[in-house]
Amino acid sequence: MPLWPKDNINRIGEACHGGPDYAEMERLGIVPEGIIDFSSNLNPYFSPLAIREVLEGVDINCYPDTESIALRRAIAGKTGLSVDNIIAGNGSTELIRLAATAYLEAGDKAFIMEPTYGEYRTACQIAGAEIIVQRLSESNRFAADIDATVRLIKDNHPRAIFLCNPNNPTGYYLSREEFGQILEAAPDSLIILDEAYISFTEEAWSSFEFIDKGNLLVVRSMTKDCSLAGLRLGYAVANREINRAMNRIRPPWNVNAVAQSAGIMALQETEVMQCSLEKIQAGKRYLIEEIKKLRFPCLPSAANFFLVRVGNAAEYREKLLKKSILVRDCASFGLPEYIRIAVNTMENNQKLVSSMQEIARGV
Amino acid sequence: MPLWPKDNINRIGEACHGGPDYAEMERLGIVPEGIIDFSSNLNPYFSPLAIREVLEGVDINCYPDTESIALRRAIAGKTGLSVDNIIAGNGSTELIRLAATAYLEAGDKAFIMEPTYGEYRTACQIAGAEIIVQRLSESNRFAADIDATVRLIKDNHPRAIFLCNPNNPTGYYLSREEFGQILEAAPDSLIILDEAYISFTEEAWSSFEFIDKGNLLVVRSMTKDCSLAGLRLGYAVANREINRAMNRIRPPWNVNAVAQSAGIMALQETEVMQCSLEKIQAGKRYLIEEIKKLRFPCLPSAANFFLVRVGNAAEYREKLLKKSILVRDCASFGLPEYIRIAVNTMENNQKLVSSMQEIARGV
Repeated sequence: MPLWPKDNINRIGEACHGGPDYAEMERLGIVPEGIIDFSSNLNPYFSPLAIREVLEGVDINCYPDTESIALRRAIAGKTGLSVDNIIAGNGSTELIRLAATAYLEAGDKAFIMEPTYGEYRTACQIAGAEIIVQRLSESNRFAADIDATVRLIKDNHPRAIFLCNPNNPTGYYLSREEFGQILEAAPDSLIILDEAYISFTEEAWSSFEFIDKGNLLVVRSMTKDCSLAGLRLGYAVANREINRAMNRIRPPWNVNAVAQSAGIMALQETEVMQCSLEKIQAGKRYLIEEIKKLRFPCLPSAANFFLVRVGNAAEYREKLLKKSILVRDCASFGLPEYIRIAVNTMENNQKLVSSMQEIARGV
Repeated sequence: MPLWPKDNINRIGEACHGGPDYAEMERLGIVPEGIIDFSSNLNPYFSPLAIREVLEGVDINCYPDTESIALRRAIAGKTGLSVDNIIAGNGSTELIRLAATAYLEAGDKAFIMEPTYGEYRTACQIAGAEIIVQRLSESNRFAADIDATVRLIKDNHPRAIFLCNPNNPTGYYLSREEFGQILEAAPDSLIILDEAYISFTEEAWSSFEFIDKGNLLVVRSMTKDCSLAGLRLGYAVANREINRAMNRIRPPWNVNAVAQSAGIMALQETEVMQCSLEKIQAGKRYLIEEIKKLRFPCLPSAANFFLVRVGNAAEYREKLLKKSILVRDCASFGLPEYIRIAVNTMENNQKLVSSMQEIARGV
């Protein structure tokens, strides 16, 4: 008799993410090295030499500090938080999983606003939770509808609420007031506020002041703004009680030694970071302006990526891939008419625009 | 009202592992760099230059291959298995957790032979499983008692069985026959066979031939023999159905790019590896011989570490730590009279012996 995994595990679909699909490229005979990647939402400008130099000194033969103390101290210094408020993860996705594992059990309800990052759904499915979805409206450009959110929360009393801010893939940014309304409506829910892309947001408000409410876990990524995707690095910020629960189930040595060292260095490169963020804003303005000229609607975005309605996204993505340009087909977000474009260097942005112009001319 | 995590999460105790405790050393005013570490069970001889050179070329700015295809191919080539039989993990502990998450739910029973690696218990507790423990007898030097094991399995019908072979911390190695008896007694249980230390075992038998039975998941570590603890790397071997379930819940990009590249390189260094393993065997013989002269009983071990009964392990460990030597106090294994010593380089082994001789003389 075959050995079946748990029912809720069997129901989990295939995950789909940005970034090169090496198996697909091998099938299509495309060399990964030649691809310009607009599908991963990473900072293309942040790669300080200082980080590479530090890495050469990392002792890869010994266990990393299982508590990531030096890294957490560096984050504490940067954010003004206490070390005890901070927990480090093997990418932010690990922290999302840990939060779901610590707080959600079979039958619990969890609230997700969609379209959004697919890993909230997966984390809930693994925990066996029932997912309450608020599907945002395309006609409203996927903007939040807080009245409906509050109604759903009050009707369902979800144990956990997942919010992505700014949201992936729409780029919508909840204002402090909108977030405050959700927080107020859900005093007994754990709110997982995923700020993976917050560094790219102009005039962002600080969520850390809400940590004291005792039901907020802010998740931050260091793979996007610090461009350390290859190393995996994220952190979460919460009060001590929540962190204590997270730490009980955090796997030992979860953050590798290279990521810990690189993260510490990256936090020191304030100027390079600021400069890179300004270039990304300029790149975003350029791309949106040029793509609009091709009569493709572009959604406003507070992040380093934005949605473009191209019609048949799968087809359009493949046309670009044949020109060695990779964008994200948003079908897995339930948006088969949209591609998602992450801002790249200006040189690469121009190549994307030329390629889209070529496609428009039927070349 | 404070937000409580799930009941089973609240019951999980503090994890305890080998390796330096950086917070403790800071408290004691000891510089971590000066410590000789006999508490982590790592290969002290394996650190080929080729690996460091490969690492310098790794693109840390891009996402790693979420499928770890090149690494899995290298493992397949080495083991003669198919790529589909192999799944890569952020250390073997991640794979242990994934197996428990995929197959164990609240109320299920899971079987563990203790003393053993603490992460099986944690993985079961997170899943909410009831743990059936077979406590091995000290008077029998913690050898397996297969008749009792088979009886417990038949009485309890555990959904999962965790076996560590050779076992951490005792070094006991289940023979093919003993393992076969367990496998036969548990056709409906998932058997998680953790072979983290198998490279160090002389005349080891191959468990891979049992994969076709359809209920076996073999877990291997590359942090120990390949000494890549800082990078985190492990893999599991199972039939396609089990791997499909594991892959549904494996986090995206779980293995960082540096670990993938280093792992591939490490697998090629067959000669350095063989040579290092021979040196470790010689070191083990030396250490056991010398320590026995101090009238401390040493347990026979098929791994690169062994247990020594010193009386008060916490006290003895602290005496050694003051001499800049770190060993594992086995209290967390329920063995407060034992320390665990991992073989180090001959130079360091000699330092350990001198320090133990000094302690014997009251110095």
